[in-house]
Amino acid sequence: MTREQAPTLTDFPHYWQGSTRWDDNDIYGHLNNTVHYKLFDTAVNSFLLEHNLLNFRASELIYLVVETGCSYFAELAYPDKLKVGLRVARLGNSSVTYKTGLFRDGETQAAAAGHFVHVLVDKESRKPTAIDEVSRATFRTIMS
Amino acid sequence: MTREQAPTLTDFPHYWQGSTRWDDNDIYGHLNNTVHYKLFDTAVNSFLLEHNLLNFRASELIYLVVETGCSYFAELAYPDKLKVGLRVARLGNSSVTYKTGLFRDGETQAAAAGHFVHVLVDKESRKPTAIDEVSRATFRTIMS
Amino acid sequence: MTREQAPTLTDFPHYWQGSTRWDDNDIYGHLNNTVHYKLFDTAVNSFLLEHNLLNFRASELIYLVVETGCSYFAELAYPDKLKVGLRVARLGNSSVTYKTGLFRDGETQAAAAGHFVHVLVDKESRKPTAIDEVSRATFRTIMS
Amino acid sequence: MTREQAPTLTDFPHYWQGSTRWDDNDIYGHLNNTVHYKLFDTAVNSFLLEHNLLNFRASELIYLVVETGCSYFAELAYPDKLKVGLRVARLGNSSVTYKTGLFRDGETQAAAAGHFVHVLVDKESRKPTAIDEVSRATFRTIMS
Repeated sequence: MTREQAPTLTDFPHYWQGSTRWDDNDIYGHLNNTVHYKLFDTAVNSFLLEHNLLNFRASELIYLVVETGCSYFAELAYPDKLKVGLRVARLGNSSVTYKTGLFRDGETQAAAAGHFVHVLVDKESRKPTAIDEVSRATFRTIMS
Repeated sequence: MTREQAPTLTDFPHYWQGSTRWDDNDIYGHLNNTVHYKLFDTAVNSFLLEHNLLNFRASELIYLVVETGCSYFAELAYPDKLKVGLRVARLGNSSVTYKTGLFRDGETQAAAAGHFVHVLVDKESRKPTAIDEVSRATFRTIMS
Repeated sequence: MTREQAPTLTDFPHYWQGSTRWDDNDIYGHLNNTVHYKLFDTAVNSFLLEHNLLNFRASELIYLVVETGCSYFAELAYPDKLKVGLRVARLGNSSVTYKTGLFRDGETQAAAAGHFVHVLVDKESRKPTAIDEVSRATFRTIMS
Repeated sequence: MTREQAPTLTDFPHYWQGSTRWDDNDIYGHLNNTVHYKLFDTAVNSFLLEHNLLNFRASELIYLVVETGCSYFAELAYPDKLKVGLRVARLGNSSVTYKTGLFRDGETQAAAAGHFVHVLVDKESRKPTAIDEVSRATFRTIMS
């Protein structure tokens, strides 16, 4: 298989930092492959929250996940401290495609690289909605 | 975005059936996007266990995940009963690429479609190892 | 330590059946201690849903957890099939105390025993509310 | 019900700090009751690791959980930053009983209080083993 290259710290304009948990390690003694997605999900939503692009309790519009993916380059494990790098790779009319990288604290090469596609929808109807200009301007600050 | 089509029941030669859990639903009242991967991981490993291709406690060789991905077509939620469809799409020297579909019980169109790449490695050295002929024959029974 | 005795199958009037998942096993090769609570939570809420005592999306009243506990007698592990036994031990004005048992399929002695206390509250104000007579009658069917 | 009082910051001699995740919130918009146990498990094992009382990969002796419990006083939610307070309440021949408190960062009263009982066992036989004097001395530093 030809595989994506592991990204490096400088590939991402935004970072979320977090801790691992005992139950993140599966029987092989490393972060189970699903934990990476929990961290990507958290990093993306934390970006939205910090920039007032989402109020997940009160907003009429919410971002739903329509596609995700991850390439695993190196093993991570609790009790590692981690960083998730985030950038916007594509900004559609109602969708945002993020690229993510998962780094062990202190390392410059990602242990995993992901992508994560959000679509803005009406909370009730779940119909896609155009992303407003203020949000677009914010997304562009981490676009590359 | 052009998106993958949702697969149907007949696209998969093997199925794993399982239950959802209360904490699978996130704040949006549906299966969090990471739960799909927990179910894919379980379906793949259950196939390996049922066919004696893995002994995750005693084997010297284990299958590690190097790539995963998922497209989400429709929302699922606890207390749905679910089925994961499984087929082998590609069989490399040391790797197996699975295609997966997640179905609500009783439905013929998948709510989500995934891929999942395993590499057979030595448990100690984590070095890739060739998949033996007996295993290959088993994988071919669900190849299409 | 003096410890609670492991309950047996006949100690519970109601059962929920479910499957384990790959990522339920932690590094010690058994169900992580937190998984038991996920299963208890699911068994209790499934009982409520099946008996129309809860509509977690539309109800104005919901049951919140105020206390839980678990004694672990024997190890369980994916790919075990499991059963959760359920009985109501105490029915207060606004609270329900459940006793739970976690059984490996085919075994008569519980691998773990838990308790789980729900309080009925108003979804908005989170204020405790009296449990109505129809619900009380249902809870009494599994009281012992 | 008569309930345990919520502990305060000064009740614990040791703290673990951590982050919450998007999928910690369940459909009621707060930390699902099982997340508290994930954090307690992490805080306890982090204490063991930091003090060289555990090497979960190589040790012949490991600590297994035999009993846990939690009282929930106030709701927590992602994206809260949290602290877990830890103290040893009882030190048996082969067991350690911890008391835990879960605090939202910046608050002095716990949102939840737990207990967590570990037993030291041989990794192979799972038979309880006496805790050595060096470990006992370390546990006593957070005993009260």
